[in-house]
Formats: sequence, structure tokens, C-alpha cells
Amino acid sequence: MQELIKVAVDAMGGDHAPLEIVKGAVEAAGRRDDLKVFLVGQEKAVRAELQKYQYDSSRIEVVNAAEIIQMAEPPVQAIRTKKDSSIVVAMKMVKNGEADAFVGAGSTGAVLVGGQLIVGRIKGVERPPLAPLLPTEKGASLLIDCGANVDARSSHLVQFAKMGSIYMEHVMGISNPKVAIVNIGAEEEKGNALVKETFPLLKECKEINFIGSIEARDIPSGYADVIVCEAFAGNIILKLYEGVGKTLISMVKKGMLTSLRSKIGALLVKPALKQTLKRFDTSQYGGAPLLGLKGLVIKTHGSSKSAEICNSILQCVTFTEQRMNEKIKAGIQAEEK
Amino acid sequence: MQELIKVAVDAMGGDHAPLEIVKGAVEAAGRRDDLKVFLVGQEKAVRAELQKYQYDSSRIEVVNAAEIIQMAEPPVQAIRTKKDSSIVVAMKMVKNGEADAFVGAGSTGAVLVGGQLIVGRIKGVERPPLAPLLPTEKGASLLIDCGANVDARSSHLVQFAKMGSIYMEHVMGISNPKVAIVNIGAEEEKGNALVKETFPLLKECKEINFIGSIEARDIPSGYADVIVCEAFAGNIILKLYEGVGKTLISMVKKGMLTSLRSKIGALLVKPALKQTLKRFDTSQYGGAPLLGLKGLVIKTHGSSKSAEICNSILQCVTFTEQRMNEKIKAGIQAEEK
Repeated sequence: MQELIKVAVDAMGGDHAPLEIVKGAVEAAGRRDDLKVFLVGQEKAVRAELQKYQYDSSRIEVVNAAEIIQMAEPPVQAIRTKKDSSIVVAMKMVKNGEADAFVGAGSTGAVLVGGQLIVGRIKGVERPPLAPLLPTEKGASLLIDCGANVDARSSHLVQFAKMGSIYMEHVMGISNPKVAIVNIGAEEEKGNALVKETFPLLKECKEINFIGSIEARDIPSGYADVIVCEAFAGNIILKLYEGVGKTLISMVKKGMLTSLRSKIGALLVKPALKQTLKRFDTSQYGGAPLLGLKGLVIKTHGSSKSAEICNSILQCVTFTEQRMNEKIKAGIQAEEK
Repeated sequence: MQELIKVAVDAMGGDHAPLEIVKGAVEAAGRRDDLKVFLVGQEKAVRAELQKYQYDSSRIEVVNAAEIIQMAEPPVQAIRTKKDSSIVVAMKMVKNGEADAFVGAGSTGAVLVGGQLIVGRIKGVERPPLAPLLPTEKGASLLIDCGANVDARSSHLVQFAKMGSIYMEHVMGISNPKVAIVNIGAEEEKGNALVKETFPLLKECKEINFIGSIEARDIPSGYADVIVCEAFAGNIILKLYEGVGKTLISMVKKGMLTSLRSKIGALLVKPALKQTLKRFDTSQYGGAPLLGLKGLVIKTHGSSKSAEICNSILQCVTFTEQRMNEKIKAGIQAEEK
């Protein structure tokens, strides 16, 4: 029998828990038979959802956790005191080797803190970055870091570049991925103090294919595969990407309903448009991995529906199969020699 | 005879100079008869363009300047040494009171440096911010600062908030404009060191209507009228706004051409869609003012066509009529008492 890849899912996290989380887990288990999902949360509520579906009971298991960490709770305190919360219980399974990966849609702060305090960093990794895939005209680019480490230092950004590069190569299958640093101009002398300090370090770094600065306007075209920035900038990029897309699509839809002529046209373009907009949907790739930990931790949107949960769980399979943590460990520790 | 509002335009700046600059100036002068435009640049080239149009020669005047500051030149050195460049000559006209305002599509760095070194700051203004209007679902929001002062301090951001508030109230006619600071979460305790330091200062500030943090995803919906941030973040916001919009619109257009059905639909929705997308075009409001100077300095996109130049020149009229610089001076100097 082949070895199962085991994913511990926080069944209580996110706006649509446990309903969409359980649904996504069942979908994922149905898609790959080398996958085992642990649904961690209040057993009664989780089982009530789970009984709606037919599933292979040897590959979906409910693990009870009585407490829930709320969105507004201070993360460090929540992780330290709520020992029986779904996040803490699920992460401990990763730490103990009972699971290979964690997927959660709950409090970002709690997932980040739990990842560091419970799962723990790979030796040599200074700060684990949160790295979502952004849809682009050409496919997808990795944005690293999008929110884990505000006020990061240049040495952190260099590690982000290396980890992001390894991720795009082995998980997304892009050979020699192009790495760029987010900047406010294309020239090397442009930028704030952090970028000016980091730029030459990236230029010297032999392990990556550094192509220089990227201006924010060139991100959507897919100019670089790995987009390096500190978390404050990264968070702005991720959220504005979603915000502009949402507003523009809503305006286009409304605009099409202004006349009878355009209403008829809207009916005709609808299928093609839907297909196009799906390609630009940030949830299609699943959640964002928190890289550089001893196990995989994936944070999905708080608003995740089953499709994003399912995609995130499937992402864990590739990540684990590719032995990504070993590759990151080798990549980061190489620099120290 | 009414007093003319005088605008000195850099006729040699931008990708489409002098053609589109001259065209925009002629359009603006045709729209308002209380406007006088000085076209500053290489006289022969400017006149060659100008002769294509019919215009009131008492209100468009060519001022010769032999040199041109190129995009790639180091700004400080360029402003100091190219005394007969179109930017320096036009800005000196503002300094000497021969013009009320400057409009230019050339090197951003040179316009920022020239604004500070030649036109000069209003007493009390620490750093003049560049403040473009962003189109939103509700109309437009002022993004302040979008690129003038990287690594700004909290006291600068407080001044940006005040100047932006005065601008939105008097130029855009929004009473009691809502001011928000760009942050990576809605809660007061979120943010990087700069935001955490600035937040309480804005909260205390009686002259503005501070509504707290704004996440980047809420910018396009028009949640706040004045969006305060330091220049690195602001530049990312401005450029990503343009980039995501451009990519998404190009994808929508391409998507519509994938089948015969959608092609027919595309023809029908085209006029309505064009109208909608025009509302989301960043160039419709003209360029970005550099606030806090002794005269008005407006920087337009390097890619400006005549419409943006015309809108920027017309913006100078409202700004000057409203005696904006006096209002900014009063607003900034009030804090010192």
C-alpha cells in the first residue's frame, strides 16, 4: 500500500466553517486516493456536516478539539492558552509527525504564530514568509512575503527570494524562475532604504535568477515568477489585486446592463467572460503556504469556499511529494557554509 | 478685464512631447477664457506644433528653453546644471510669480526636485507629497503620498493627511472628507512601525475627519476620500491600480473574442463597456499635484496624451481660484501654535 499524505485541516476556521471546510475536504479526498484528511474541530458539528456526503472513511478522520480561536483574539495569547483549539490541535499533529501539513482559513495571526511556535522553523530560516500565488496574464507569480513579517530586514528578503525560487521550481514546475524585488522604479538606485540594501545582496546571490526591480504595474503581466517584498508592501499588493479586480468586474457587469443593446450583448459574452475572469481569481490556486517551517502550513482566505479548501489540500500533496521542506532546508543552509 | 490664471507647461516633457502637450494646451485654452498658457521649450519645435491649430494668441505664449532634462538623468544634478531646460525655466516662472502653476509630464524626479529647489516649500511643510486622484466606484479618492518621499516619518504623514483633506474639500468639493491610513488590517494595533506611530497622531488631529485604517482591498470601493501612506506603499498602490486594470481589461477584451457568439456580444456591449472603463481611467483627473509648495506643481504621466494635459491645466484653475496654497499654509501653520 502506498504511503498516504496526511493533511490536518482546521474545520472551524473561516467565515464558512465548518460547512465549506468539510465539503472541500471531501472533494479533495475524492480527487486523490493517496490523501488522508484529518478534520480537526468540534466533533459534533463536523460530523453533522460530514454525514451529508459519501466518502472513504479510511481517508477522512474527525479529530475533536473543543475550542475555537476567534478572528479578533490576540494571536500569541490565543495559541498559548487555547490548547484544545482546532488550530493548536491540528498544528501539534504536524509537529508530532501525525500529519504532513496544516490547512486553515481562520485567524491569519494565529496561523502565523502557531506555525512558528508549534510547528517550528527550519534551522537557519530567520522568518517564515507567507507566499500566495497571484494570477497573471501568463499564469501565476509567487508573492513573497504577503503578510507574515512587517519591518523585515534585507537578510530576510534574501531568504524569501531563495525559498520562493525553490517553490516555483519544484511545486509549480517553472525552471530557473525569474526573481524580482518590488520597487518604485526600474533603476538600481531607486527605492527605499530596505530595497537599496537588499538589491545588491540579491544580485550577488548565485542560487537565484535575479532579474532586478519590478514596478507594481508590471506584476499582473507576469514579468517575474517570484516577487520579493516585505510584508507591508506584499499585503497591499495582494489585497489591492483582489480589490481592483472585484470593483472592475462589478463595474463591467453593471456597465453591461445600462442599455437593452448591451444587455443582449452581455448574455452572449457571459460564458467567455466567466472563463476569463476565472483565470484571474486569486482563490483558484488554493491558499498561501507559510514557507520555511518543519511541516507545511497553508493559510487560506477567511472567506474560503470548498473549492479553495480543496485546492489547498491538494497543494499539500505536491509540496510533500516534492520533499519541499528538505529542499528549502538545503537551500537556506547552503548559504551558511 | 478679469485676471488670467497663468500656467507654465513643460512642452518638452513626456513620451509624446511636444505634439500632445501642445494639443492639450490648445484644448485647455479653448475651454476657459480666464486661462493663459505658457508653452516652455524649444521654440522652433513648439511653434511647429502650435501652427497646426487655431487659438487665441493672447492666451498661448511660447517661452524658449533650449535644453531638455532626460528621463534617466540624476534629478538633482539636472536641475542644478541645466538652467535653460524647459522644467527649470517653467518652474522659475512660478517662483517669480509670472505663472501660478507648472504642469509637466517629464522626469518625475526632476519635477519633484525642481518643485522643492526652485518653487520652494510653504513655511512649515516638511515634505511636499505627490497626490494623484484614484478613480473609485463612488468617484475619486486622493492618494497621498504616491512617490515623493520614501522612508517618510510620522510627522510627514500627519501633514499629508491635513493637506489632502484641504485638497479634497476645496478642489473636489467634498465636505468633511474621510481620511484613512493604509494598513494591513483594520484594527488599531496592526501595522508596521511607521503606521503604529502615526495612527494615534492622526486620531488626535482635530482638523481632519480620521476614520482609521484602510486595507488596500477597500480603496477601489471609495471607502475613504483621503488615503494616507508613505511614498513606497503609495507608489505600489498607484501603479498596481493601473496594472491590474490594464491587464484585466485586456483579458476581458481577449476573452470576448474567443467564440463567434461572444464576438457578436462584444460588439453590442462595446459602447457601454467603454463608458464604464472610462470612469476607471486614472488619466481622467489630470496629473498629480505636488502639494505644499509656494506655487502649484502638477506632474502628469510620462505617457500623457492631450486629454490628460488639458485636464491638468484646467485643474490649475480650480486650485488657484480656491487659493489652495493659502489654505494649506493656514492648515499647516495652525499646528505650530
